[in-house]
Amino acid sequence: MTSQVNPLAPATASAPPTFHVYDTTLRDGAQQEGMNLSVADKLAIAPLLDELGVGFIEGGWPGAIPKDTDFFSRAASELTLKNAVLAAFGATRKAGVRAADDQQVRALLASQAPVITLVAKSDIRHAERALRTTGAENLAMITDTVAFLVAEGRRVVLDAEHFFDGYRFDPAYSRAAVEAAFAAGAEVVALCDTNGGMLPELVGEIVTELRDVVGIPDGLHAQPGDPLLGMHAHNDSGCAVANSLAAVAAGAAHVQGTVNGYGERTGNADLITVVANLELKQGRSLLVDGGLQETTRIAHAISEITNISPYARQPYVGASAFAHKAGLHASAIKVDPDLYQHIEPTLVGNDMRMLISDMAGRASIELKGREMGFDLTDQGDVLSRVTNRVKDDEARGYTYEAADASFDLLLREEIAGERPQYFRVESWRTIVERAGGRGTEATAEATVKLHAGGKRIVKTGEGNGPVNALDHALRLALRRVYPEIEAFELIDFKVRILDTEQGTDAITRVLIETTDGARSWSTVGVGPNLIEAAWEALTDSAIYGLVHAGVSAR
Amino acid sequence: MTSQVNPLAPATASAPPTFHVYDTTLRDGAQQEGMNLSVADKLAIAPLLDELGVGFIEGGWPGAIPKDTDFFSRAASELTLKNAVLAAFGATRKAGVRAADDQQVRALLASQAPVITLVAKSDIRHAERALRTTGAENLAMITDTVAFLVAEGRRVVLDAEHFFDGYRFDPAYSRAAVEAAFAAGAEVVALCDTNGGMLPELVGEIVTELRDVVGIPDGLHAQPGDPLLGMHAHNDSGCAVANSLAAVAAGAAHVQGTVNGYGERTGNADLITVVANLELKQGRSLLVDGGLQETTRIAHAISEITNISPYARQPYVGASAFAHKAGLHASAIKVDPDLYQHIEPTLVGNDMRMLISDMAGRASIELKGREMGFDLTDQGDVLSRVTNRVKDDEARGYTYEAADASFDLLLREEIAGERPQYFRVESWRTIVERAGGRGTEATAEATVKLHAGGKRIVKTGEGNGPVNALDHALRLALRRVYPEIEAFELIDFKVRILDTEQGTDAITRVLIETTDGARSWSTVGVGPNLIEAAWEALTDSAIYGLVHAGVSAR
Repeated sequence: MTSQVNPLAPATASAPPTFHVYDTTLRDGAQQEGMNLSVADKLAIAPLLDELGVGFIEGGWPGAIPKDTDFFSRAASELTLKNAVLAAFGATRKAGVRAADDQQVRALLASQAPVITLVAKSDIRHAERALRTTGAENLAMITDTVAFLVAEGRRVVLDAEHFFDGYRFDPAYSRAAVEAAFAAGAEVVALCDTNGGMLPELVGEIVTELRDVVGIPDGLHAQPGDPLLGMHAHNDSGCAVANSLAAVAAGAAHVQGTVNGYGERTGNADLITVVANLELKQGRSLLVDGGLQETTRIAHAISEITNISPYARQPYVGASAFAHKAGLHASAIKVDPDLYQHIEPTLVGNDMRMLISDMAGRASIELKGREMGFDLTDQGDVLSRVTNRVKDDEARGYTYEAADASFDLLLREEIAGERPQYFRVESWRTIVERAGGRGTEATAEATVKLHAGGKRIVKTGEGNGPVNALDHALRLALRRVYPEIEAFELIDFKVRILDTEQGTDAITRVLIETTDGARSWSTVGVGPNLIEAAWEALTDSAIYGLVHAGVSAR
Repeated sequence: MTSQVNPLAPATASAPPTFHVYDTTLRDGAQQEGMNLSVADKLAIAPLLDELGVGFIEGGWPGAIPKDTDFFSRAASELTLKNAVLAAFGATRKAGVRAADDQQVRALLASQAPVITLVAKSDIRHAERALRTTGAENLAMITDTVAFLVAEGRRVVLDAEHFFDGYRFDPAYSRAAVEAAFAAGAEVVALCDTNGGMLPELVGEIVTELRDVVGIPDGLHAQPGDPLLGMHAHNDSGCAVANSLAAVAAGAAHVQGTVNGYGERTGNADLITVVANLELKQGRSLLVDGGLQETTRIAHAISEITNISPYARQPYVGASAFAHKAGLHASAIKVDPDLYQHIEPTLVGNDMRMLISDMAGRASIELKGREMGFDLTDQGDVLSRVTNRVKDDEARGYTYEAADASFDLLLREEIAGERPQYFRVESWRTIVERAGGRGTEATAEATVKLHAGGKRIVKTGEGNGPVNALDHALRLALRRVYPEIEAFELIDFKVRILDTEQGTDAITRVLIETTDGARSWSTVGVGPNLIEAAWEALTDSAIYGLVHAGVSAR
């Protein structure tokens, strides 16, 4: 039954929460290609997850991974968590060894984590072919390890690996694995779609059937002490979020995922997307009060630490998630933002943005101007000029959508009649030279001649390429008159050759992103070649930076 | 009912296909932040979509967007599609105007597209507040416009905008919009989750209910002439793919989406993911024979043209989609790859990476070599060297996938021990200079010094940019000794800055395409700046051209 609003019965002060938001960013998420988290990184991310209000933070595999042993050891003294508890991840005991004698299991205990999550085979083929043991011994491994850890006072979660594939092959065996874990005292059995190939409808059917046969109450009405089913989805079919929702609808009360959907291959279920859907569309209350409003900030803060570029089109928290382009909508959005957005962006701490492009009309440009601090309400003339200028420029290759700072300067130019004048360029030149044969290095230098602060300045910069050299030369030329420029740093640089059918006779567009450490801005340049386009973007960047640093022309 | 294998009844020769794979990459996809497709780009992408085997290619909004009017006009003479038909997108007539008198509607006809897709309000609030007309007039707009275009001999698809939100608010009105469209002769009504906020379970319920009440047969058994329901999903809840699958399970027979999930905000449903799920997990046959195996190649080729960095974690076609990180799985994968992958990656033309990958790598390289005329069957040494070289080069930024001619030269180099030697470069240099202030033109020249045909040659070329000038200088330098070079023309030139987080310190990759009038070839160059990268691509292009023109070194 689909419920649009279906609040949980309020938890009593002594009852544990009946829905687990379980974060594995630091363990499964860390298996993403290109991610390499240090202990310090993990210790920085954990408080952010805690701030979000997840219930569990799976920190890693102590014992098996030395960095993770360190993490748990340092977490004991350095981490103070308000909302979450730490979970240590590991595996069931080896075949033929007692749990108490298994080094890996003992290391999980030694981590001091109050929760221990064990991955166990729940697909008979994996028990037999990957572990090379019998189905019966595998069940004993589950029973023994869970019982041992429970007796040691830990809360235990059992991750039933390859559960869905295993269930489709031999449902009785997979069910036996689940039952063994609960019988031994596991608090949760999380069903893992380890290969990520499941589709939502079948996930729902299997979870429903499992609950019926094993006798697990619907998570929605779970009492303290009741066994709970969980879901651990991967995105190989593009359905990780939907699979998680399907499991919850079928009675799961524990969802595992990662922030920003980090993870191996196509990633784990994006935990924020799952939680936002459950809170905003199904009225569940899962994070701490006000936690959802922090998701955009926290998702971005975490991506700063992981150094993985944020994905602009990520649901809810992505930079583009509420960015509207088409003229089709812009006039209507002014009147009625709710008609065009599935939720109010501030609920997840995000913003509505209007993109400027040749599809934009006066309405989007007015809105955008307002966003940037310009009130163009009764300035019909300026609006018309700006709208036409944008269309013309875009037809010539400019793109203001990705270059807010250039658009800002365009507005100032149309309003005030001229661009802010900090310096006057006399000339510039770049030379790139490879003085030797194949395999020798090329050198690049640039010379800039300009007037600023009443002086004529000639400077030469070097770099690994003509644009890099030009950037250095421009800074060298401006820094004595405008020392503020030393704080600006070029952090991103994109080149696009437009209308490529003309070969090297095409137009080149350059986008650059600059930061002053606190905020960043983007500028665009267009020209018959890369150097001219880059020069335009570089000078606009300097001018914008100085304007916004409140600097007057000297 | 969940079916694992559920083949469609085979279509008879005269019956139209009963499932529509409808691609809107060039229209809705183009609304993605950062995308700016030229007419040439669209004309390059359309044949790739056709090769994939989609049934419909929505090309844009002729009349409303000048570039799109051009696209349809040029498509008429320049595009030959084998599998798909072109669709022109537009809107229903304006309120209070006859369809035949509406400029925008006439422009759709003028585009000559055999299919016209009209977006219409199907949410009463939008009709009243956004269009500021009455519900009745909006229905008349649908009826009139559809009937008019059908009478003019076009196939009509009606995109019911904001359908699901509208249905939840006033189901009778939204239903009336759907019925009006079918009654007027629309072939398909595509239900649009325009705000992207729907979840799969409710999508399925609504589509099922709509079919029952309106009397639309299950798409699985649709006969020619039966009304078809379609789905157009956006990814704001992270469920676009799942929503599309839910609609199909509930009886829709037409799915709209974009390659690489391009689109506004969080994007449209990723059409390849949807189709791969339907083909591989539900036994449907939707693309042309062998189409699915081309999806990885085509998805990447399209991202080269859009110049939007591919998303590594994209399901099925992403670079990381089948990349297994060492540890938990690696040893098992060696034995039993199927235990750890939800599908065999080659089914979608992708590769498993990180295993005894020599086998997989070597196999594809051997095949590729054979494709190019090199028999490497018993040349294990060469194969190993080439495989390792390709891996190393690609790690440094090369991409041989889009540069067959560079790969050809690599093979020759590994087989023969050296690249073909037509000339020896002594040095080169480029100078770009703007001798005046803002608004004056820059000049670019390049000087090349090389040895060919026993002579030392020094030539200076000019151009509109440093690469253009280098290209001219190289030709000038070679043409006396190798007059064949006069026939080569540079027709395409792409630049990508890799690892852009390093600003102008990143690596630059250049791809160029050259033609001799009969055939064309692509080469790649990589370097710390554009000029060096371009030089490598330019010289490789000349060498390859001369090799294949049968020219001996002079």
